Amino acid sequence: MNGAQSVMQTLLDSGVEVCFANPGTSEMHFVAALDTVPRMRGVLGLFEGVVTGAADGYARVAGKPAVALLHLGPGLANGYANLHNARRAATPVVDLVGDHATYHQRYDTPLNTDIRSIAGTLRGWVRCSQSSAGAGADAAAATAAAQDPPGRVATLILPADVSWNEGGRVAEPVPLSSPSPVGDATVAEIASVLRGGEPALLLIGGAACHEAGLRAVGRITAATGVRVLLETWPARLEAGAGLPAFERLAYANEKAVRQLAGISHLVLAGAKAPVSFFAYPGIRSEQAPENAETHVLADTANDVVAALEALAEIVAPRGGPALTETAGRELPSGRLTGRNWAEVIGALLPEGAIVSDESMTSGFFNLQGVLAAAPRHDLLTLTGGAIGQGLPVAVGAAIGAPDRPVVGLQADGAAMYTIQALWTQARESLDVTTVLLNNRAYAVLRWELENVGARTSGSRAGRLFDLSEPDLDFVRISEGLGVPAARATTAEELAREFARAVAEPGPHLIEAVLS
Amino acid sequence: MNGAQSVMQTLLDSGVEVCFANPGTSEMHFVAALDTVPRMRGVLGLFEGVVTGAADGYARVAGKPAVALLHLGPGLANGYANLHNARRAATPVVDLVGDHATYHQRYDTPLNTDIRSIAGTLRGWVRCSQSSAGAGADAAAATAAAQDPPGRVATLILPADVSWNEGGRVAEPVPLSSPSPVGDATVAEIASVLRGGEPALLLIGGAACHEAGLRAVGRITAATGVRVLLETWPARLEAGAGLPAFERLAYANEKAVRQLAGISHLVLAGAKAPVSFFAYPGIRSEQAPENAETHVLADTANDVVAALEALAEIVAPRGGPALTETAGRELPSGRLTGRNWAEVIGALLPEGAIVSDESMTSGFFNLQGVLAAAPRHDLLTLTGGAIGQGLPVAVGAAIGAPDRPVVGLQADGAAMYTIQALWTQARESLDVTTVLLNNRAYAVLRWELENVGARTSGSRAGRLFDLSEPDLDFVRISEGLGVPAARATTAEELAREFARAVAEPGPHLIEAVLS
Repeated sequence: MNGAQSVMQTLLDSGVEVCFANPGTSEMHFVAALDTVPRMRGVLGLFEGVVTGAADGYARVAGKPAVALLHLGPGLANGYANLHNARRAATPVVDLVGDHATYHQRYDTPLNTDIRSIAGTLRGWVRCSQSSAGAGADAAAATAAAQDPPGRVATLILPADVSWNEGGRVAEPVPLSSPSPVGDATVAEIASVLRGGEPALLLIGGAACHEAGLRAVGRITAATGVRVLLETWPARLEAGAGLPAFERLAYANEKAVRQLAGISHLVLAGAKAPVSFFAYPGIRSEQAPENAETHVLADTANDVVAALEALAEIVAPRGGPALTETAGRELPSGRLTGRNWAEVIGALLPEGAIVSDESMTSGFFNLQGVLAAAPRHDLLTLTGGAIGQGLPVAVGAAIGAPDRPVVGLQADGAAMYTIQALWTQARESLDVTTVLLNNRAYAVLRWELENVGARTSGSRAGRLFDLSEPDLDFVRISEGLGVPAARATTAEELAREFARAVAEPGPHLIEAVLS
Repeated sequence: MNGAQSVMQTLLDSGVEVCFANPGTSEMHFVAALDTVPRMRGVLGLFEGVVTGAADGYARVAGKPAVALLHLGPGLANGYANLHNARRAATPVVDLVGDHATYHQRYDTPLNTDIRSIAGTLRGWVRCSQSSAGAGADAAAATAAAQDPPGRVATLILPADVSWNEGGRVAEPVPLSSPSPVGDATVAEIASVLRGGEPALLLIGGAACHEAGLRAVGRITAATGVRVLLETWPARLEAGAGLPAFERLAYANEKAVRQLAGISHLVLAGAKAPVSFFAYPGIRSEQAPENAETHVLADTANDVVAALEALAEIVAPRGGPALTETAGRELPSGRLTGRNWAEVIGALLPEGAIVSDESMTSGFFNLQGVLAAAPRHDLLTLTGGAIGQGLPVAVGAAIGAPDRPVVGLQADGAAMYTIQALWTQARESLDVTTVLLNNRAYAVLRWELENVGARTSGSRAGRLFDLSEPDLDFVRISEGLGVPAARATTAEELAREFARAVAEPGPHLIEAVLS
């Protein structure tokens, strides 16, 4: 058994069943090992950003890591943006990067790169395998490190000779750590804050955005009146009818500051203290009122759900949460706008859908409210702000949950970063319906230009935010990549095409042209 | 004047006239400065790999740097692969990366990244501007550093507040360094090696691949009989009828070893010692015979052309080089194959073309021989091995040399890494004809799989090299991105479509389906 085969088998024994890959020569023995470890599923992406984003989406849904197989430093760099998003989502990802043979690296041939330093900036776990005999153990360690609470990117660098040399040994899985419990004293202190009568706000994130956490928070707010916000970018938010619904902290700084205004106590449960996404001239970065006191019920490595349930037992021993109901499914009509498209999706969203949301400004108006009243679903958001995440995450989600429909809500500009993902959707016959919101602009930048106080006389700077001249034709692009596509310019057309797409197996794209 | 405006004006004063950009919120003031410094041309790329590859292609042709404007760490990472290629090409590129405001970085908001460490792995020049008053001087220093012989990637990190604060000062251009001269003793020593009668080989690279260097080498070999090879991946090779033609050192290790076999002396002139691109089990990495003595006439930072001319003056004071002539323009016929497509291009290549070559295995058979006998042209190659370079480099070349036709020879798999480049070709109405060689595979990996001695039973591993299921339809993809496209399946169709495309202004794509 060579080193590559031992790594492949160890990964499988450790619960890793999917290898998203864009390999090169240095990874050939690892690829060949797919034929000797047949339970590992290999999924090709035509660009590394697809591979890493898919690994992120897979793990958010499946609750366990996949491997992202990358080719040396340039492959890692191409996949970096979505590893960055995975890092911010605290998603467990095993990132396997092939390298030149150990004895070859000193020649600094063209593809030679400092993989370790690039991977190090992801602030996760990095190891370079030194021998075929040890590579299996390194793979087991990487898999466990990726899942060390709350989850991280674990990069295993595998030199070509470590892969091809014989002497590989399959390693036992490394036992996984549990999230650390929150002490009773902390829970009791937060309970007294909430009962103290001063205006308080509970900001929740991470695992608290899943059903058990939401139900506990629902009980807490019903009993104490504490205001609740979700973190701006949950990795996975369970939402829709039958669950308690809470607003998310706004991306727009002004709105976030208004959401937090007037509180005396800010309680963090699996979320970080709220800070403006970008800095703006003359504006504070911190969003909570200056005189508000911050309390930490649980940080991201804690068992936040258990802490919330313990808190609920104190403040609401018998109370239940308020639950949302499915709103009437009224379909809008007329030309598609930044507002009514979301109403169409909300009305027709299939039960149990996984929604990969990279709708950007097109989702600003009312997507959140619409989804809260939609059937039960999981929402995956753009956790790290590096656009080009939505289409790949949808790939991974569809592979991680093959029995659930996946809906991608995708802005035009962001789609173009990793448009190659559509091809993988076609090859793997994934049940993904992408709604491509085409407003022919990086609309977020037009909006941010004003926020940062930049003045332009218009045309030359503005041309860098404009995506017309020429218009992107996403129907042709999608068809060229193997995904059947249609165009909608009215709400009626979007409703018809969306209903048809979700009813048919396999991938579809609907270009929603917004007026 | 704010910091951003001072940077923009300083860059322009230092000779930088084009800003390839994919900006975000942190770069808004720099973008706005385009309206106050109107001579700077802003060119939008829909993905950062387009932006950095275009900056590389521009500088290879224009002989001076452009700016690549990127958004924080994820933007730098997305552009990294083509910066890596630029580094290996020794291309001067000013890579301007926006960052969060200095006071905002400590909050580690979602897009916060260790830009300096990522940029550091490019082994060029990195500086983070600390004040609006100093940013102009930083920009002047970056521009000079990029051009320090032989050329490099200079990364200037520009925090948002440094951009937006007033007090910017335009800086004077920093005088550029010249390549260091080679001493007379070195030249004389090489002359005696070449005259010594032992078998010798001259391996040339860098500026030696331009006309003056080639002519000097042509004189040297005509007088001494020394064998000559060009480095495998020249950044820019001047070639075609009327110039001396030399073989390139092969990418395939076996062939390279054969090319170098039997020599007693290896003389390096602007090229690195030949080493196998990848390592292969049981095979030496170094390609020259073990007993060959290596001599360095000029390293990459030396004035290699002056050194070669001095050498020619000693060994061939009156001799001229042998020059190639345009071969008969016989057009092949029948179904397109990996061999005959190149003959079509060679026969119809327009005079003075710039050829961006990322044809990969499709160019293995006879592209080099065909181009040597074609009309005079410049050839830009994949210097760093990170695929996804060809289409962006063609963008930059077309902007750097607006009066010359640009021809892109592009493999299918590599095209998909930065396919977004076609949109920029359309927006800027660039005179680029892309011949998209579709063999429905990562053919290089099938070939390398054998070279590295990996055995597969076939289907599961092989699926990761296969680009069919579904077939990519590059005609639709290209049209979706705004570039008119046609398909050719025979040599006659390719000849007709290629002739039509180069005769019409603006971009065109021809999908050449290889049997």
